[in-house]
Amino acid sequence: MTVTDVAIVGVGKIARDQHVPAIEASGDFRLAATVSRSGGVDGVDNFATLDALLAARPDIPAISFCNPPQVRYAGARAALEAGRHVMLEKPPGASLSEVHDLAALAEARGLTLQATWHSRHAASVAAAKAFLAGRRIRLVRIDWKEDVRVWHPGQQWIWQAGGLGVFDPAINAFSILTEILPVPVHVTAAELRFPVNCETPIAAEVEMAGPRGERVLAALDFLHEGDPMWRQVVETDAGTLTLDQGGAIMSVDGGAQQGEAWSAPGIEGEYPSLYARFAELLAARTCEVDLRPMVLVADAFTLGRRVDAPAFVDPALAGDR
Amino acid sequence: MTVTDVAIVGVGKIARDQHVPAIEASGDFRLAATVSRSGGVDGVDNFATLDALLAARPDIPAISFCNPPQVRYAGARAALEAGRHVMLEKPPGASLSEVHDLAALAEARGLTLQATWHSRHAASVAAAKAFLAGRRIRLVRIDWKEDVRVWHPGQQWIWQAGGLGVFDPAINAFSILTEILPVPVHVTAAELRFPVNCETPIAAEVEMAGPRGERVLAALDFLHEGDPMWRQVVETDAGTLTLDQGGAIMSVDGGAQQGEAWSAPGIEGEYPSLYARFAELLAARTCEVDLRPMVLVADAFTLGRRVDAPAFVDPALAGDR
Repeated sequence: MTVTDVAIVGVGKIARDQHVPAIEASGDFRLAATVSRSGGVDGVDNFATLDALLAARPDIPAISFCNPPQVRYAGARAALEAGRHVMLEKPPGASLSEVHDLAALAEARGLTLQATWHSRHAASVAAAKAFLAGRRIRLVRIDWKEDVRVWHPGQQWIWQAGGLGVFDPAINAFSILTEILPVPVHVTAAELRFPVNCETPIAAEVEMAGPRGERVLAALDFLHEGDPMWRQVVETDAGTLTLDQGGAIMSVDGGAQQGEAWSAPGIEGEYPSLYARFAELLAARTCEVDLRPMVLVADAFTLGRRVDAPAFVDPALAGDR
Repeated sequence: MTVTDVAIVGVGKIARDQHVPAIEASGDFRLAATVSRSGGVDGVDNFATLDALLAARPDIPAISFCNPPQVRYAGARAALEAGRHVMLEKPPGASLSEVHDLAALAEARGLTLQATWHSRHAASVAAAKAFLAGRRIRLVRIDWKEDVRVWHPGQQWIWQAGGLGVFDPAINAFSILTEILPVPVHVTAAELRFPVNCETPIAAEVEMAGPRGERVLAALDFLHEGDPMWRQVVETDAGTLTLDQGGAIMSVDGGAQQGEAWSAPGIEGEYPSLYARFAELLAARTCEVDLRPMVLVADAFTLGRRVDAPAFVDPALAGDR
């Protein structure tokens, strides 16, 4: 089996928690280099800039971008122009227009671009999709609630324009929703609560509809204390599906749980599956860029009414002020 | 030559000012019916609801939607499901997701769906595109400034979520921009000024970038008094193009003006050209749904910083309060 050298750009929380272990466990990839100004991975070649990596290591054919979405575009474009295949952590960029540009470039150059949605690779998503196929959807209730102080400590970019705020986790819910539903849905209304000192929302409610009166009600909250709630409940004409723990486990009509519960979200399986998919795309030299989750987020921002919320100060950064 | 019967849904300002005269002047279409709760067009069959029209007039193969974008989707979907071809006034809907849904349905049914951008049919847009082809773009300055009290009197929907506010006219600028530029651009930053009593912005600044450092700076203002300013100036490596009066006239390096100036915007040519294009699409049984202008708007809402602006009261509605 061929092992492909891959470089990681942006060695932050998601890279250390997920990408590096997934690559180390993969038979398809080897971590050949990193780009980070604040330190790389022990024993792996680190570069201060992407330009330095591209110049020094023409032998590395694939680059995985784990840096914040606001600074993703220039690097991804440079990598594609240098003939490298690209994987993008979610969300794939700060704007839809920039990702359309990257996708067109990758297609034109015959390179692989993968816009990843790790939650689609959670253990029970495929089973949920199979259950819903052919059923009539009535109502989907999404609760996506977590404590940002626990799950995103010190991540200032999430509060800056383009960082999406509570939609950074909620886009995971939307990535599952668009994968499992047998019908398209579109945003009809939203209310977004912006802390008065932040550029992105800390909570939101989003309403969507399908072509046959299907309804989706999403409640998103970044100040939810205790155990996170990453759940969607789908009422159909033939049973109610509960997909819980971010897609890891499911049950029907309150019956026995299927799937694999986890202790830390996504650690068991999602990212290894993403890299296995990346290997398939590389072998086929094709792209996978499904922007539907990001379109729903953009629609919520466009349609959403804005409401002020109290100022938010990240405890992990409070000492800096 | 075949004349196609067309019905108009929503007999408001844009229908009376543009669609009805364009259809009357067209050799391709005949206005066969309207749907309006507040009165139709003299001598033309009027229905109170779209459902009534669809049931009573199976002989009308094409429907042109001129109603506000927030209520567009259900009707357009019903029309397509009833096997009718559909033209959508700009913006084509209140959300990107709903237009994607309509486009997929039209494709699946082999029907024509045209998401129109009337400003692309302005007299000098094609010449501007030809001028810019092969040139290196440096900077585009867009000034899109008009008095909403003059151009949108009493149009409450424009201030309601999904109505886009100042982006309702500015999407015309973006439709021209995406048509004439030889490179893609993406939104990098925006500032949106929301009147404290409105759900949509009354002014905005939007910055965009291209892959080679091309820059776009757009200044949008809905409180601009006097003559409207609908202008984009494109600085290139070989001359500066000024496209003015919403695309009607152009000049290069301050030289002589080309194109046809108008007294009332768009009245001479844009809508007749839209309907001529609709006829071509019907003959070819194809769709034309280019959502790039709307993606740029959605990106500006998603990325944009929000700033409060003074309350705005439409003088045409002030008597109602």
